[in-house]
Amino acid sequence: MPELYWEDFEPGQVIEIEGSTTLTKDEIIEFARQWDPQPFHIDEAAAEKSIYGGVIASGWHTGVVTMRLLVDGLLGKAASLGSPGLDETRWLKPVRPGDTLRARAVVRETRPSRSKPDRGTVKITWETYNQDGEKVMTMTGIQMFARRPPAPAD
Amino acid sequence: MPELYWEDFEPGQVIEIEGSTTLTKDEIIEFARQWDPQPFHIDEAAAEKSIYGGVIASGWHTGVVTMRLLVDGLLGKAASLGSPGLDETRWLKPVRPGDTLRARAVVRETRPSRSKPDRGTVKITWETYNQDGEKVMTMTGIQMFARRPPAPAD
Repeated sequence: MPELYWEDFEPGQVIEIEGSTTLTKDEIIEFARQWDPQPFHIDEAAAEKSIYGGVIASGWHTGVVTMRLLVDGLLGKAASLGSPGLDETRWLKPVRPGDTLRARAVVRETRPSRSKPDRGTVKITWETYNQDGEKVMTMTGIQMFARRPPAPAD
Repeated sequence: MPELYWEDFEPGQVIEIEGSTTLTKDEIIEFARQWDPQPFHIDEAAAEKSIYGGVIASGWHTGVVTMRLLVDGLLGKAASLGSPGLDETRWLKPVRPGDTLRARAVVRETRPSRSKPDRGTVKITWETYNQDGEKVMTMTGIQMFARRPPAPAD
């Protein structure tokens, strides 16, 4: 049974997500070779000469690492029903080999569904930090959660 | 040498991206096990009982499949310098096992950089379609491109 339902989220909540992930150079290059094979992600020599001065992680890699932290640390124990979308995804600083990422959730607003009484949405800004406490990525998303079921009558 | 520079993009352009990707059930489950292990992505029995009625691809999976199509079909031959972010990412319809995805780019606006004369940004809506022509995902992003270098003087 989920521990968290729609009712458990409130605007202003700041949730530090447990867990962290360190990205190695090999992981960065391997991920980007599969999904985002641009030179500054996969080619060390080309990356050195690029505006980034070295290999940086695909923003998609930072995104999925963050998603995994969110599922392990928050969504996996919540009655999550998925998400219709994200607003304002921002890659604020490059993620480089050896960086260790952590995540934080800031709850912006909550709304019951108008058409479906069993669920509601929560607008959350997901923030990703590196080991120096620098914000490297933010996403503001709409997350759907089931509402807490009524207690059994008997 | 890149074929496309910032100057080659114009508001109103619609670029059909060559190529397509078909997602198998195994690929959907494997990707989600690694990055987005929510029950409706990784557990067939749980997914059947969920609001989705069966396994659906993680939105991140649809995103990276689209990114790979964009790199292979457009960004890889352009002087792409990466992206500071996306606005309005929307997952409009579930992507299910066996779906074949294609992508299209719609150019919204172009702006030269104010501080860096060697580059500019292009606001692009990236659209992802399934085999029935249904739009399954859209993202509006800012993409940086290098400007075309001046021709050699001699």
